[in-house]
Amino acid sequence: MPEKPLKPTERATQVPLGADATLGFIGHVETPWKTRADCPKQGRLDGPDCAVVLRSPWDGALQGIERFEMLELYLWFHLARRDLLVIDPSHGGGPRGVFALRSPVRPNPVALSTVRLVAVQGARLIVRGLEAVDGTPLLDIKPGRCPHTPG
Amino acid sequence: MPEKPLKPTERATQVPLGADATLGFIGHVETPWKTRADCPKQGRLDGPDCAVVLRSPWDGALQGIERFEMLELYLWFHLARRDLLVIDPSHGGGPRGVFALRSPVRPNPVALSTVRLVAVQGARLIVRGLEAVDGTPLLDIKPGRCPHTPG
Repeated sequence: MPEKPLKPTERATQVPLGADATLGFIGHVETPWKTRADCPKQGRLDGPDCAVVLRSPWDGALQGIERFEMLELYLWFHLARRDLLVIDPSHGGGPRGVFALRSPVRPNPVALSTVRLVAVQGARLIVRGLEAVDGTPLLDIKPGRCPHTPG
Repeated sequence: MPEKPLKPTERATQVPLGADATLGFIGHVETPWKTRADCPKQGRLDGPDCAVVLRSPWDGALQGIERFEMLELYLWFHLARRDLLVIDPSHGGGPRGVFALRSPVRPNPVALSTVRLVAVQGARLIVRGLEAVDGTPLLDIKPGRCPHTPG
């Protein structure tokens, strides 16, 4: 999918981002949304069932997860461009720095989704509350802490 | 610092983690804690002033950040081992999978700290609420969303 052209008020950097550390994907998510344009802006806890699929050996690190109602999923937004400094959001407010926005476009596109755990099926968790595109890589799962209710 | 030996109930994987994506550090944090043993378990919003130092060109992405009281810092816990599947926490409860714990030891040690923004000084943000070791690399900053109050 081609990137949208920048608005005149927006700014990208030509300085290449370093490669200071590496990430290992531990699985991926399965959702009904096949493109970024299909994805909801924010996940809804009453949204459709989605799956979190763990890759071996990381399915061996799920013991005790069934005790938690809410989970934090750390996802890697692999489709996002990583060079924007200033964004002029279509919802208004004028241009501002990437760090003053929750846009998925970021130098290191790690996204945290708070989801409700519906069921544990071996290496597969059924959850609600996701907004990511189908196939988005998974970096981590943590038990939920914050009573934030998206949607 | 040598790693603590595993307890008999704990389990690590010998399967090497992949290198599926790369991270570029955009800066680092300056804190009073020089080793992991010195760090508080959880940051406190009434804790000491710490600094978030942005590396060029990412100091050009701060415009508008001064409007936010709370920020989410995404940090890379570069000192943490990444191979543990099952941990038996010293605070009790018995062994459980890494994904059922909020331990800093994780396959991809991305940590989110919610901090209070005290001041913006050019490429340097003064914040409170950190618990990371001095020099911890910075991956991202997002405006705060969740009214979570640590400490």
